[in-house]
Amino acid sequence: MELKRERVREHLLTVIDSRRPGDAIPSERTLCATLGVSRPTLRAAVDELVATGLLVREHGRGMFVAPDKITQELVAEHRAAGVPRSRGDWTSTVLELRTVRAGARIGRKLAISPAAELLHVTRLRHVDGAPIALEHLHVPADLVPGLTAADMETGFYAHLRDRRGIRPAHAVQSIEPTVLSDEEAALLSVPVLSPALLFDRTTSDAANRPIEYVRSLYRGDRYRIVSRLALTDGPPGDPATDAATAAARGGTWWGTVD
Amino acid sequence: MELKRERVREHLLTVIDSRRPGDAIPSERTLCATLGVSRPTLRAAVDELVATGLLVREHGRGMFVAPDKITQELVAEHRAAGVPRSRGDWTSTVLELRTVRAGARIGRKLAISPAAELLHVTRLRHVDGAPIALEHLHVPADLVPGLTAADMETGFYAHLRDRRGIRPAHAVQSIEPTVLSDEEAALLSVPVLSPALLFDRTTSDAANRPIEYVRSLYRGDRYRIVSRLALTDGPPGDPATDAATAAARGGTWWGTVD
Repeated sequence: MELKRERVREHLLTVIDSRRPGDAIPSERTLCATLGVSRPTLRAAVDELVATGLLVREHGRGMFVAPDKITQELVAEHRAAGVPRSRGDWTSTVLELRTVRAGARIGRKLAISPAAELLHVTRLRHVDGAPIALEHLHVPADLVPGLTAADMETGFYAHLRDRRGIRPAHAVQSIEPTVLSDEEAALLSVPVLSPALLFDRTTSDAANRPIEYVRSLYRGDRYRIVSRLALTDGPPGDPATDAATAAARGGTWWGTVD
Repeated sequence: MELKRERVREHLLTVIDSRRPGDAIPSERTLCATLGVSRPTLRAAVDELVATGLLVREHGRGMFVAPDKITQELVAEHRAAGVPRSRGDWTSTVLELRTVRAGARIGRKLAISPAAELLHVTRLRHVDGAPIALEHLHVPADLVPGLTAADMETGFYAHLRDRRGIRPAHAVQSIEPTVLSDEEAALLSVPVLSPALLFDRTTSDAANRPIEYVRSLYRGDRYRIVSRLALTDGPPGDPATDAATAAARGGTWWGTVD
């Protein structure tokens, strides 16, 4: 059962790999015949690939290879700082910008009084014109008096550096999977309950002063993270170092602990 | 509308923060009265926190603060290798172990012929006895002749190093959000369509020979990734380095591109 499902999935992935974004794939009927499986079995596999953004179903027209995902790369090898890269033309639209009281929880994250004011900015981010992420930013109001929506749309970090003399230097970020609510899904132009990545980040300047707390939802069908992992501390390919390091660390790494 | 939802969420998070795992939180009725919101509005916020694993609803008993999530830390700062840490007692159960043909797609990932044999292992991973991840491992059969389920349960990487002289050294890994199918959800003891993280990883040894291709699903309600990010290449806190680096890189980092 496990393996039958994997076999159907493998076949579909091979079909996808052999085509380009936008190309049609064979009909459900043809695929069922080729694989010798029932319609529900095939549909379950297709549904999964549609949900994870590899296939697109167009009613009455058939199934197509989805556009390539935006890939955010995290370099985690020795000597490389944690600076990512991603492609496409990123733009932002501010949906709401208001001054509110920090409250206990966010006040603690930003190391300010619960009674202090902060800017709460809701921002939609686009890549090549398509909505990709919904962000809630919280910034201590006294750091950025007079901040406008335009400042948030043309580049908040550049604004902080160039106009406020504040340099984002460090962040602690957590990532979890979630599903989108009605409202979030509508803003991101995807079906309700679509999978998404939830980023939760607190950013500080070089003096370790918190400057923003951000909660972001990234569309799972259009966004993924890629990382390159290494078990070595020394130069890659040095077997002595590899062995010693791997032994000392028990061979654990991210996403596995074997 | 955006902000009302955020306000309810903030209040619930503050309530959760002030309690310990397993503690009860106020009833829906009380929370609606406190916040001055309707039952559907409150429920939508509670649903989200249940889905993301912060609250637990027990039918007829009320709502409780969920157990702490297993936190996998990725260190991505300069000088630190990409080696993670996570807590708890990890164990594995092999559900299936079979020899199959590689096929075109996985053959390419493992740099072997599509006709070559590989071991396909389906493995359930537990933390402190609770199922947390479902893994599909693909390993070229000629690397591990005679491999048993027990070898996969006591530590695959240790087995590779100690018994086969193979040292996992590098990996490329992608992470995407997804939702669990009926079968996956049943194996992981969560409701169907629960959010999960999908890890896709190809691991190589020090000579860059691919040794495994792994596809894993991690429960979103019990697992998250934390990373520490830095914009600096030089020593932290050196403003000149910070400024130069930030300027050169346009201030981009993981999960944002501002």
